[in-house]
Amino acid sequence: MQFTAAQIAMLINATIEGDANASVGSFGKIEEAQKGQLAFLANPKYEDFLYTTGASIVIINATQELKQTVSATLLRVPDAYTAFATLLSKYQEMATQQMTGIQEPSYIAKTAKLGQNIFVGAFSYIGEHVTLGNNVKIFPNTFIGDNVRIGDNTIIHPGVKVYHDCIVGKNVTIHAGTVVGSDGFGFAPQADGSFKKVPQIGNVIVEDFVEIGANATIDRATMGSTLIKSGAKLDNLIQIAHNVEVGNNTVIAAQAGVSGSTKLGNNVMIGGQAGIVGHLFIADGARINAQSGVSKSIKTPNTAVTGSPAFDYTSTLRSQALSRNLPDMEKRIKELEKLVQQLLAEKVNL
Amino acid sequence: MQFTAAQIAMLINATIEGDANASVGSFGKIEEAQKGQLAFLANPKYEDFLYTTGASIVIINATQELKQTVSATLLRVPDAYTAFATLLSKYQEMATQQMTGIQEPSYIAKTAKLGQNIFVGAFSYIGEHVTLGNNVKIFPNTFIGDNVRIGDNTIIHPGVKVYHDCIVGKNVTIHAGTVVGSDGFGFAPQADGSFKKVPQIGNVIVEDFVEIGANATIDRATMGSTLIKSGAKLDNLIQIAHNVEVGNNTVIAAQAGVSGSTKLGNNVMIGGQAGIVGHLFIADGARINAQSGVSKSIKTPNTAVTGSPAFDYTSTLRSQALSRNLPDMEKRIKELEKLVQQLLAEKVNL
Amino acid sequence: MQFTAAQIAMLINATIEGDANASVGSFGKIEEAQKGQLAFLANPKYEDFLYTTGASIVIINATQELKQTVSATLLRVPDAYTAFATLLSKYQEMATQQMTGIQEPSYIAKTAKLGQNIFVGAFSYIGEHVTLGNNVKIFPNTFIGDNVRIGDNTIIHPGVKVYHDCIVGKNVTIHAGTVVGSDGFGFAPQADGSFKKVPQIGNVIVEDFVEIGANATIDRATMGSTLIKSGAKLDNLIQIAHNVEVGNNTVIAAQAGVSGSTKLGNNVMIGGQAGIVGHLFIADGARINAQSGVSKSIKTPNTAVTGSPAFDYTSTLRSQALSRNLPDMEKRIKELEKLVQQLLAEKVNL
Repeated sequence: MQFTAAQIAMLINATIEGDANASVGSFGKIEEAQKGQLAFLANPKYEDFLYTTGASIVIINATQELKQTVSATLLRVPDAYTAFATLLSKYQEMATQQMTGIQEPSYIAKTAKLGQNIFVGAFSYIGEHVTLGNNVKIFPNTFIGDNVRIGDNTIIHPGVKVYHDCIVGKNVTIHAGTVVGSDGFGFAPQADGSFKKVPQIGNVIVEDFVEIGANATIDRATMGSTLIKSGAKLDNLIQIAHNVEVGNNTVIAAQAGVSGSTKLGNNVMIGGQAGIVGHLFIADGARINAQSGVSKSIKTPNTAVTGSPAFDYTSTLRSQALSRNLPDMEKRIKELEKLVQQLLAEKVNL
Repeated sequence: MQFTAAQIAMLINATIEGDANASVGSFGKIEEAQKGQLAFLANPKYEDFLYTTGASIVIINATQELKQTVSATLLRVPDAYTAFATLLSKYQEMATQQMTGIQEPSYIAKTAKLGQNIFVGAFSYIGEHVTLGNNVKIFPNTFIGDNVRIGDNTIIHPGVKVYHDCIVGKNVTIHAGTVVGSDGFGFAPQADGSFKKVPQIGNVIVEDFVEIGANATIDRATMGSTLIKSGAKLDNLIQIAHNVEVGNNTVIAAQAGVSGSTKLGNNVMIGGQAGIVGHLFIADGARINAQSGVSKSIKTPNTAVTGSPAFDYTSTLRSQALSRNLPDMEKRIKELEKLVQQLLAEKVNL
Repeated sequence: MQFTAAQIAMLINATIEGDANASVGSFGKIEEAQKGQLAFLANPKYEDFLYTTGASIVIINATQELKQTVSATLLRVPDAYTAFATLLSKYQEMATQQMTGIQEPSYIAKTAKLGQNIFVGAFSYIGEHVTLGNNVKIFPNTFIGDNVRIGDNTIIHPGVKVYHDCIVGKNVTIHAGTVVGSDGFGFAPQADGSFKKVPQIGNVIVEDFVEIGANATIDRATMGSTLIKSGAKLDNLIQIAHNVEVGNNTVIAAQAGVSGSTKLGNNVMIGGQAGIVGHLFIADGARINAQSGVSKSIKTPNTAVTGSPAFDYTSTLRSQALSRNLPDMEKRIKELEKLVQQLLAEKVNL
């Protein structure tokens, strides 16, 4: 794909300085870019690269002053970094939309229903009665189990496994290696010390605009659905147990885990490696610090907690600071004991 | 598959009320079920659905009273939920047993030995000299390395990777994305600060009736075997290091990790995100709380520990509670210091 | 492959006792080994097996005395275990080098450039403009995205996913299921509570001699590169966030996580399940204990820290020990309060 300075200026609402017909086909760092590439300059500290760059087009801040003439076509915008990021975002979207067709060999059950403009990569498996919406992109080496439904514009990265009967919404992104719909961890203890599996016959529902990172695991419900609500963002290596509900726009950082049947409200933020025990309720807007261990429901919205077990953020920080003073406190108690013994002895002597 | 009320009644030992020839082919929630579906009513709170459901057969509690006539055939049992779960379990087993054959394309080495009634999904790789027992089900996109042996009735979900020479027993279930037999983390420090790999030439043995969750990792032994003993249940994203031994019916929750050469006894229970350092011994029946960090062997059976570092459960809870009182304790010490100084000053004054 | 005692003696610099033409094709434990196998005896405690083993060749310590005649050919070396490990290491290397060719079906883009003596396993996907160096071994079910470059002698185990534009050096090993180059977790909060994705347009660079365990995740940079420097060793289930830099020969144990833009120095050691927050600097040689939560930069080289939040190792151990004495400290304060009240009361009485 080739774009002219005029076309890009329209996309990012820029003022053109130089040849409006200059064209580019790829991106480069300003210090390394070659003819036919687009670069940006956001930090004035690197201004000198502007005069030596091989880039054909450079996006710069409207306020950037020039000490010399520049061979590249300049596109001036209020914020060069944001404009560049916007451009990349649009470019990635276009590139993804252009991935279409069915690579061979792949396995697509005859009963599967495929939307318009989809992509199915090589070695991907599409089970019986699967429905793929329009513009769905399934990367290679992916497993989509029987009866799964995937909504429009959703991107499934390589090696994702979606078990049977799960539902994935529109505009969802799931990164490589993530497993959706594996059995919940349900075993009934038997008299002889062994465990009997409790069948896990529910599914997982991932709503629209959710993004899930790489190598995460989201278990299917025992009955009913494990639910990831619209706009939630889940990082890599996260564990979501059976029958959990993750609220709208809730954000969970890497390696955190949520145990069975816990309901997270909307706009909750969970730090990395935090854990939440099962059957709790976490109110809207709660903030759970990294590595926290939440063992009780959080009933007040917007509460911040930290520690394992987790308590109110501010008071925990004070307790943690004091616990670092324990050697000093112990010394003060010892000193007091000596003085009081002295006073007691003297009293006797009186 | 279609089943009549009479057939189902026999499977779950139920009393039939209504048409014994009513037949069903799938399951549904009582409030949504249609003709040809089976539902259940466990909670009397939802009794009203019994009179409006479209289900052809409903399993109900023996004690359930009826206020109106019901169009569905009723199957009465002592506990409707348990009967329904049992039925589902049998149904899933049957459905899995009916998955047979080799999907194409798959890769099966000529030296592999395949049992009766097996299933190998598309894009699965079966290496040289692999042995698959009877009724083994290998889902798509799975890698079974050279010389691996898998026992009867074992189910390997999509995208599992079993490295060469590992042994998996009978009636085992391994969920999607799990890796069995990757190299243990063994590196010998060199004089120049770099590390030299210690070859990991052992294997992993997974005994019968083990279940392992999704995206877990179980490293092969440096020499000998990493051993997961019969009936153990391991959740998602668990790390089992080289030469670890997991005892019979031991249960490990999600994201927990066990370091190299540690031996876990039988019927141990390990909470989520807990960690156990290497070369320890954990006695039978020990209970390790979520997020605990176990740094010493647990020699007494049935001990419960918590905290990082982990200590006796009850005393740790008391210490944790007191540490939340540290601001108060500090205040009390300050007050004592003031009073003692006052007493000392007055003594001087006397 | 068959090797004679004479050939093996040369490889490990051993003295031969017995038939120099005895030959072996595989390894076995001394107590189980059969004709045609090689075993070793390191621990004199197991000497008796030397007289009963079926092994054709046994490596023993130079100092090992014999009470009876031995039918196997003996290879004497200063340290039998080390010699055996060296041999295995060479054997594994040879075996890996002998894996060559392209298994079918696989998917190799026409624009990919393949080096000499490479192996590509079945169901592996090699994208457009990928470069594979000489002796690269790609196991089955692997995804190598567009424009990825992989250096000589690197081994990619089954089910690894490397996203587009990432660079992997020479002599690297990546274990099964690991994801390299997934999107960093970057979302800009919007006024309505939802999040807008920040495009992640950087890549991951994995330098030479790095080893990465199974099911780990290494995110691509937002811009620029996430960097794993030469000789670093990363264990299973590790999370490396966008724009992180891992120093030379730095070692990270299983389930640890490093948040965005943090720079780890050289020869840092990070224990299992530890977490490091974003935008920190960790000095060379720092040691971070298992389950630690590092929330501040570590500026002094070779500092050891522990705890969550993490502080100096020795003082934290003392505070942790004292926190276990809190019930006792609380009792001592109560006693002091009683005595001081008594003294105050008596003063009044005087």
